[in-house]
Amino acid sequence: MAQSITQKILAAHLVTGDLVPGSEIGLRIDQTLTQDATGTMAYLQFEAMGVPRVKTDLSVSYVDHNTLQMGFRNPDDHRYLRTVAARHGVVFSPPGLGICHQLHLENFAKPGATLIGSDSHTPTAGGVGSLAMGAGGLSVALAMAGEAYVIPCPKVVRVVLTGALTGFASAKDIILHLLGELTVKGGVGRVFEYAGPGAATLSVPERAVITNMGAELGATTSIFPSDDRTREFLHAMGRPDDFAELLPDEGASYDEEVVIDLSKLEPLAAAPHMPDKRVSVREIAGLKVDQVCIGSCTNSSYLDLKTAALMLKGKKVATDTDTFISPGSKQVMKMLAREGLVEALLDSGARVLECTCGPCIGMGGSPVSGGVSARTYNRNFEGRSGTKDAKVYLVSPQTAAMAALRGEFTDPATWGDAPQKPELPAEAPSIRDMFIFPPEDGSQVAVMRGPNIVALEDFDPLPDSITAKILLKVEDNITTDHILPAGAEITALRSNIPAISNHVFGRVDEEFVARIRAEGQGIIVGGENYGQGSSREHAALGPRHLGVKAVVVKSLARIHRANLVNFGILPLFFVNAEDYDKLALGEELTIPATEVTPTGIVEAVTASGTRIPLTNDLSPAELDIVRAGGLLNFVKNKRG
Amino acid sequence: MAQSITQKILAAHLVTGDLVPGSEIGLRIDQTLTQDATGTMAYLQFEAMGVPRVKTDLSVSYVDHNTLQMGFRNPDDHRYLRTVAARHGVVFSPPGLGICHQLHLENFAKPGATLIGSDSHTPTAGGVGSLAMGAGGLSVALAMAGEAYVIPCPKVVRVVLTGALTGFASAKDIILHLLGELTVKGGVGRVFEYAGPGAATLSVPERAVITNMGAELGATTSIFPSDDRTREFLHAMGRPDDFAELLPDEGASYDEEVVIDLSKLEPLAAAPHMPDKRVSVREIAGLKVDQVCIGSCTNSSYLDLKTAALMLKGKKVATDTDTFISPGSKQVMKMLAREGLVEALLDSGARVLECTCGPCIGMGGSPVSGGVSARTYNRNFEGRSGTKDAKVYLVSPQTAAMAALRGEFTDPATWGDAPQKPELPAEAPSIRDMFIFPPEDGSQVAVMRGPNIVALEDFDPLPDSITAKILLKVEDNITTDHILPAGAEITALRSNIPAISNHVFGRVDEEFVARIRAEGQGIIVGGENYGQGSSREHAALGPRHLGVKAVVVKSLARIHRANLVNFGILPLFFVNAEDYDKLALGEELTIPATEVTPTGIVEAVTASGTRIPLTNDLSPAELDIVRAGGLLNFVKNKRG
Repeated sequence: MAQSITQKILAAHLVTGDLVPGSEIGLRIDQTLTQDATGTMAYLQFEAMGVPRVKTDLSVSYVDHNTLQMGFRNPDDHRYLRTVAARHGVVFSPPGLGICHQLHLENFAKPGATLIGSDSHTPTAGGVGSLAMGAGGLSVALAMAGEAYVIPCPKVVRVVLTGALTGFASAKDIILHLLGELTVKGGVGRVFEYAGPGAATLSVPERAVITNMGAELGATTSIFPSDDRTREFLHAMGRPDDFAELLPDEGASYDEEVVIDLSKLEPLAAAPHMPDKRVSVREIAGLKVDQVCIGSCTNSSYLDLKTAALMLKGKKVATDTDTFISPGSKQVMKMLAREGLVEALLDSGARVLECTCGPCIGMGGSPVSGGVSARTYNRNFEGRSGTKDAKVYLVSPQTAAMAALRGEFTDPATWGDAPQKPELPAEAPSIRDMFIFPPEDGSQVAVMRGPNIVALEDFDPLPDSITAKILLKVEDNITTDHILPAGAEITALRSNIPAISNHVFGRVDEEFVARIRAEGQGIIVGGENYGQGSSREHAALGPRHLGVKAVVVKSLARIHRANLVNFGILPLFFVNAEDYDKLALGEELTIPATEVTPTGIVEAVTASGTRIPLTNDLSPAELDIVRAGGLLNFVKNKRG
Repeated sequence: MAQSITQKILAAHLVTGDLVPGSEIGLRIDQTLTQDATGTMAYLQFEAMGVPRVKTDLSVSYVDHNTLQMGFRNPDDHRYLRTVAARHGVVFSPPGLGICHQLHLENFAKPGATLIGSDSHTPTAGGVGSLAMGAGGLSVALAMAGEAYVIPCPKVVRVVLTGALTGFASAKDIILHLLGELTVKGGVGRVFEYAGPGAATLSVPERAVITNMGAELGATTSIFPSDDRTREFLHAMGRPDDFAELLPDEGASYDEEVVIDLSKLEPLAAAPHMPDKRVSVREIAGLKVDQVCIGSCTNSSYLDLKTAALMLKGKKVATDTDTFISPGSKQVMKMLAREGLVEALLDSGARVLECTCGPCIGMGGSPVSGGVSARTYNRNFEGRSGTKDAKVYLVSPQTAAMAALRGEFTDPATWGDAPQKPELPAEAPSIRDMFIFPPEDGSQVAVMRGPNIVALEDFDPLPDSITAKILLKVEDNITTDHILPAGAEITALRSNIPAISNHVFGRVDEEFVARIRAEGQGIIVGGENYGQGSSREHAALGPRHLGVKAVVVKSLARIHRANLVNFGILPLFFVNAEDYDKLALGEELTIPATEVTPTGIVEAVTASGTRIPLTNDLSPAELDIVRAGGLLNFVKNKRG
């Protein structure tokens, strides 16, 4: 049968199940990656499994999120990550070397490989034809231990790109366009597989912008074919042997199809506070821009930064527009330095930061009060920038550079002729010798722990019946930033669940933690797309530690749903969405947990007797995991 | 009469008083500088004076301390500083342009000029022959308003340098040697004026290392002659017209003299936790080094960083030694980039940060728990790094680079031949166009304030008699970091006295704030050299806000003493140092404030009847200021 790229990779890695959309499949995982904010917990979990050395082809531990080192916790985490990597056969990427997805694309990602990463933007590697998925840290730990990665088999959406980009339109505008069309939950349960003549016009770094930000669709992942452009890229990266052609078969069938004519795209922006709030830059012309940020795993490649640097070269950014540049990797920084472009950026008045995630995750670079920030990043959730009333617009490097120069958004018709697109050199400088590769035998390496690194607690199994108060009721599109914010102070507690739990929902309701600590347990009620955003399993672990027994919502984001299951919180859906309105904060709800069956219906009852039918989308295995109190308990029980 | 350089500059700027050591003199101030951490308060005070435009030759507002922008407060402060500068005729140096003292030396400092800055390392400009002094922000505000700067006339110490540095010995080792000889209070009331054939062998950036760190002696300032080396430097900086020869007269007399034979110096370090704890690097060979930091206002010049970069070039730093590089200015960064040295630093595995103070003030870059950090910085006070149990050694760039490569301190005898010292090019690239110069008429500029920028409160006059409890008793060498720590979180509150006051003495005694808030007022008892370290007047303003009426100590650091006076806290000394032991925490003390006279003795009485004779070193004017409740009240009263 003629297969899509996605089907080829799935079939080649299938361990359990059948390739029927929606049914549960287990996949062999070739590569894993972690970043520091989620990685400490992933390695603590891996250590708990007692496996001496990772069983993947390649596992890499990146430090890119919290690199500021405000106090001992953060450098202690880095030291733990470095030593635990050496002990168990994991490659370590030290702080400052670059952003995980950019580094992985440059150095390790392979066409046709499966990759899971404890970061929601892992799909970036789809730019070279990897099937790359964001996952909870526990799933990554299990994959490192050689276990299959279990997911519902995705639908495959063929995204046919026709025509070619013109003027100042860029790869970013392709994905912003798609987000505008499909919304932040339009991709749930789907892989977006790019095809068509327009795809062939895009370089791998441009493709990676699209696959990266496909995460904002809620998609399982996004993937491009591995073709001549991929060959060029891997050659430039000094990895010609990693190339393998990977194209869909003629006549392959797809579950859905979307067509985008690239020649019709213009510079776009995602307006506050959601990546799908698409507007054209033309429409927001005249809006003063207080801050510009260029970088992040979305748009920090050599091509992205060279594009911006050439626009800024010989000019000055507006004096009241604070302009930050975060190159994606030391390779990017070296290439810019060789071409005099680091100097050009400095001369323009821009601030050149270390090669890290930086302001994208609120790690510094917050805008002024009420300020407008134009960012080449991938998320503009409210408060994520660190300034609650800031208004963040997601834009391309071109749009960002122009906003920096003019101090406001302006109509692209006034930008003049678009400069020629820069190209990758035939050979880029290698930074491979800056990774710390593990010794052949790591068994003698001492793993160093600081006082803030706390082993995972034991969790109780799910009770037979849950009777608990609704201690929080939230609206649609609650993100993991709402559940557990990022920022240096809180992220420094990622390896300490009891401590970080004090910040759960802190930006939504400052009283929530005190309330649930007083009650000892509780239920959360939410709307659509609950838990969208990052892969941080702390957004499940923190609530679990505090005593959240169930979340009752209209719908769930993919990775957060998996994290709830993995840590034994029962995820339930309203059968009738309007029942959301019948549940009030503080009300007691009884859920007959033993009566829950996979995809079946149970009736929850309020203290006042209102009956609320609830369902779920759990597989039998997932329900067993929740009943066991989470995946670690489940694995322990299985092993006896 | 034959004059020293110091006497020449003092005489040329004398407004009031006589040049008799110890007597009060008023000086005309040519230049001022502020940095962001102290600057917001300085400009709030300047605004309160109602002067439309600064009356100095030049005033510069630098942003270099808190540049991380964790949340809205910090960028709001930057915006306030930028707009208030434009309104009142102050040059603004935006975040990322560099470190105030390095930038001032490169761009503005002039031989023979007087400069005061709201930063204790302002003496750096003594490297080109400025008489440059650290001062409280209020003194800087007054100087901007055209008022004289009032200080006790200093003694002048002639420091005769003979011979020349050899091997890996550097300018840093000269000042570390002197600190070892004289201790952190050996410079109080003194200007260190460098002379001798050894001085002529030192470039201006090397001289600036010495004058910078002369602040650690407690000195009023340090100064070098303006000679051929100064001419070379100012020419390289594109400022040949700013050169003026400034040498001591033949036969000038000095109050004291110190001789240092440079040829006998070896690489030194200041051991934890004081800059005067001199040891030789040889003695600490074998000590594992977890972190290396190269930069800060002490050692971040082009020559410093090139020295380090050439040692690191083509090599790798130890994998377990986290190595940070913070260039002193964009000029330095540009010069390194042009010579391929930014790339060399990146290749070595070092982390290249923005051009700011960075880890020196605990703004990121904290070491691991219990870690050893080798830093080219100027202070190693306990906890200043952000890691309370870290052990910080202050060293030269040479020693730091070698520690980074080897992962431990090693005997300099094993370092091989010292490379040739780099030299300044004849012409360095100018970064003058990156400063934001004020408009000719700033009266229409809107000053932008964020919600965290709180105007200064009104303070009550000193009561006739103080009866209050001793709410804190501390040991010798309490620093301003003890009184009010730095770090991003607390520094973000520098423009909000009520909020920042919650952190007063937080690292010394977590209960202090609650105690004094409950009592409403209190007295602090301390030992020798109370208030050493930075110029931050928040270390006086915070205690004042909380109700501290008097500090009773064995001796006081110079700038903090001025800040206490400026904000109306009565600074008293024990007549008999052993009486320190007679006063206990919680005890009530009555001080007959009306009986205090300049340098006179009063008897304080404890609740149990113990009589403690106390004195002071206040001038009549200073006592009037304290009685008025501080300098702002005093000026208001004077103006009627």
